[in-house]
Amino acid sequence: MKAAVLYSGGKDSSFMAVMLKRLGLDVELCTANFGVYDSYIPASKSAESLGFNHKVLDLDFEILDKTCDMIMNDGFPNDGIKFIHETVIEEVADRYDIIADGTRRDDRTPKLNINQIRSLEDRKNVQYINLDSFGHKSVKLITSNLFEISHEKSNKDNSSDYEVEIRTLIDEKGGNSLDIFPEHYQTRVIGYK
Amino acid sequence: MKAAVLYSGGKDSSFMAVMLKRLGLDVELCTANFGVYDSYIPASKSAESLGFNHKVLDLDFEILDKTCDMIMNDGFPNDGIKFIHETVIEEVADRYDIIADGTRRDDRTPKLNINQIRSLEDRKNVQYINLDSFGHKSVKLITSNLFEISHEKSNKDNSSDYEVEIRTLIDEKGGNSLDIFPEHYQTRVIGYK
Repeated sequence: MKAAVLYSGGKDSSFMAVMLKRLGLDVELCTANFGVYDSYIPASKSAESLGFNHKVLDLDFEILDKTCDMIMNDGFPNDGIKFIHETVIEEVADRYDIIADGTRRDDRTPKLNINQIRSLEDRKNVQYINLDSFGHKSVKLITSNLFEISHEKSNKDNSSDYEVEIRTLIDEKGGNSLDIFPEHYQTRVIGYK
Repeated sequence: MKAAVLYSGGKDSSFMAVMLKRLGLDVELCTANFGVYDSYIPASKSAESLGFNHKVLDLDFEILDKTCDMIMNDGFPNDGIKFIHETVIEEVADRYDIIADGTRRDDRTPKLNINQIRSLEDRKNVQYINLDSFGHKSVKLITSNLFEISHEKSNKDNSSDYEVEIRTLIDEKGGNSLDIFPEHYQTRVIGYK
């Protein structure tokens, strides 16, 4: 049984990948792409530095398009990010037996709640695993022991989360992604310690 | 920083111990005892078979006594088990930096909810880790790959969970523990695969 880890190259999804591998599962790292920008490249580099297979999931542009419309209407990203994450999980659930992501106990979005998890597992006959076991302090402690991590101002070329293609498409649609996603710093895993 | 895993010798707490060790933490297995019966012996054997240090935490008899009174009044164990687990965690939080237990996402009791976890972590300046990342199917899959596991009818000599001393004391108090805890089967980890 293969486990797909939704992978951005950041510390949380890298934590999940290493944890499942060390628990004996056959892990494949997956990054969603919607054809707007090759945002999977940083994740691909991180995956290689950790010795994992990395797969780009080419998903339907319509998913990204609907996400951007939601976010532009709302003026803030929460519901859109939640929608795109849930939709990606539904897609991946048709292709794998086990799906994992790097959402922590104290993440607010994009998180599946317990009822969504049960529904997903029952409807799709999959197992879902996240980082709910751990708070942010434990994740920080463990990942700083495991990984070399770079902290950089987030931009199109150092990040592989949904935000990169969302920003690109919002700007193409005439919106201003900087109003919606302010500048921030992010982690990228560049290898084991 | 040492991580204490509350340990019964079963598959869930063994899973937690191995997971944290493989993530690089310094793990010590701990079994609570209240002086009524040497119920820690099966856990001690399981810990040894997995190569972990095992510590018996000698806790106050009053905790067990109050637990048994709650359970005898209620006629069922849920609230008492929840009380004793929470009280043990509070005690352990004064002695370690990280506390972990084997409660899974779909366990009902004895589970700390998110508000209890936050309160514990803030008041005691500890990190708390459980098995909320995993549903019972994933726990079963992973532990059956990791461990040799025995399935036995639960009795005083093959179990180290709270139930053993609770049953002993309830019977001493003139109750009938078999009315409250019906016979059941349980897992005990006897080594790696």
